[in-house]
Amino acid sequence: MLSKNKIKFINRLKQKKFRSETGLFIMEGDKLVSELLSNRKESIVQLVATTGWLRANQHLLHRGIKEITEVSEPFFSKITSFESPTGVLAVLSIPQFSFHENDLKKQLSIGLDTIQDPGNLGTIIRIADWFGINTIFCSHGCADCFNPKAVQASMGSVLRVPLFYVNLETLLDKMSFFDDYIVYGSFIEGPSIYNSKLSNTGMLIFGNESRGIQDSIKKYIRFSLSIPSFSRQKNHAESLNVSAAVAVFCSEFMRRGL
Amino acid sequence: MLSKNKIKFINRLKQKKFRSETGLFIMEGDKLVSELLSNRKESIVQLVATTGWLRANQHLLHRGIKEITEVSEPFFSKITSFESPTGVLAVLSIPQFSFHENDLKKQLSIGLDTIQDPGNLGTIIRIADWFGINTIFCSHGCADCFNPKAVQASMGSVLRVPLFYVNLETLLDKMSFFDDYIVYGSFIEGPSIYNSKLSNTGMLIFGNESRGIQDSIKKYIRFSLSIPSFSRQKNHAESLNVSAAVAVFCSEFMRRGL
Repeated sequence: MLSKNKIKFINRLKQKKFRSETGLFIMEGDKLVSELLSNRKESIVQLVATTGWLRANQHLLHRGIKEITEVSEPFFSKITSFESPTGVLAVLSIPQFSFHENDLKKQLSIGLDTIQDPGNLGTIIRIADWFGINTIFCSHGCADCFNPKAVQASMGSVLRVPLFYVNLETLLDKMSFFDDYIVYGSFIEGPSIYNSKLSNTGMLIFGNESRGIQDSIKKYIRFSLSIPSFSRQKNHAESLNVSAAVAVFCSEFMRRGL
Repeated sequence: MLSKNKIKFINRLKQKKFRSETGLFIMEGDKLVSELLSNRKESIVQLVATTGWLRANQHLLHRGIKEITEVSEPFFSKITSFESPTGVLAVLSIPQFSFHENDLKKQLSIGLDTIQDPGNLGTIIRIADWFGINTIFCSHGCADCFNPKAVQASMGSVLRVPLFYVNLETLLDKMSFFDDYIVYGSFIEGPSIYNSKLSNTGMLIFGNESRGIQDSIKKYIRFSLSIPSFSRQKNHAESLNVSAAVAVFCSEFMRRGL
């Protein structure tokens, strides 16, 4: 059974500070946890599930899970982040990645400047995973990628895509010493991405949901790109959602390399 | 002041049934309501705002708003859908649109089969607005586009993009009598959208977040298209989020028409 202390422990993992202290985070939901049990069993520190979920998923549980805690549904409702809980969550170790500036020159990366909504961040990680983007750099002002909403929106991609919280300016400043390292920025106006020359290496920068890319970052951008609006209406949407812009940018950059 | 009955009335507008009965919905938040006051004042049936918001936004309020209700912050917290309320919401009339099957032949539309997440639906409406897609058809199994989360994710585009709840099968069956009407479907596997011939008219169908497009709709699809994954990892993301897929499809279809 889940003691009061354990309920408290799991609920505290919803806070960034406690995740940093423990190096742990939560992944919740039947689909995500079932995938984990099939492909990444070793990363599970603790599995918490209702009696009903455990009974229905015995085939996934044979070996190698460090700790399984069976709880009643009312207990599970005290730890879930879901409105309609599916009866299972896993406590996982935060994955450790590393990068070398020299490697960055050979790949396409994403740089995120103060993306505040964890759902947007998670969706961007999932898009990067699909399009084979190797690295994401987040400014310190971005949401935490191990926030339960970000983990959920990433659909598990947060375990696969190397993501680093960095001082974006410092990193871009370092990279600016490489002449052939191109930094692109996503803007609402400017040269159309469809008519611009695109490289298959460099960094694509996306800015905050309402304020866009800040000036201190802008100065490192060699090419400003926009996704033109095709609307003929006078008052159309002011902008695309940032994750939709990331999807279009990744599609356009990767397609050109085909 | 806001009476108990009015609080109840506004809270009931969070339910689809009551929205249908009254023909009203809620749009909340400083950015969206400020835009409304600048561009679409006439659609506001009632404005509810805190004393602080009204004081800071007097310049927006000169004329023509039917009813303004000033409330205290504690009162506003009883009607807000936001975690961090900005102190203003508007009650609006649900916009009325109409379409003719003959017009559909000349344009590109989106068909949504059981999109369940209101956030996804709202984001798709915003993307359609940006890319100048004239019409969205939702199967009856889709989320309600006037759900507060959908309205929020659409960033007001729900007022601009004509969206109809229809029996998708019946509509596609009617449209199938036009030989030159092409229905495309978004799938995880199949011919790459980048190598396929795309028309600038017809319908793009997207399916449910986990189950995809149902069989009864599939049979009307002439061309299946996929967004190829560029990942070299063995276990990469299983799929793109449906709104990311809509963004890539719209980008690719519209770009070709340039």
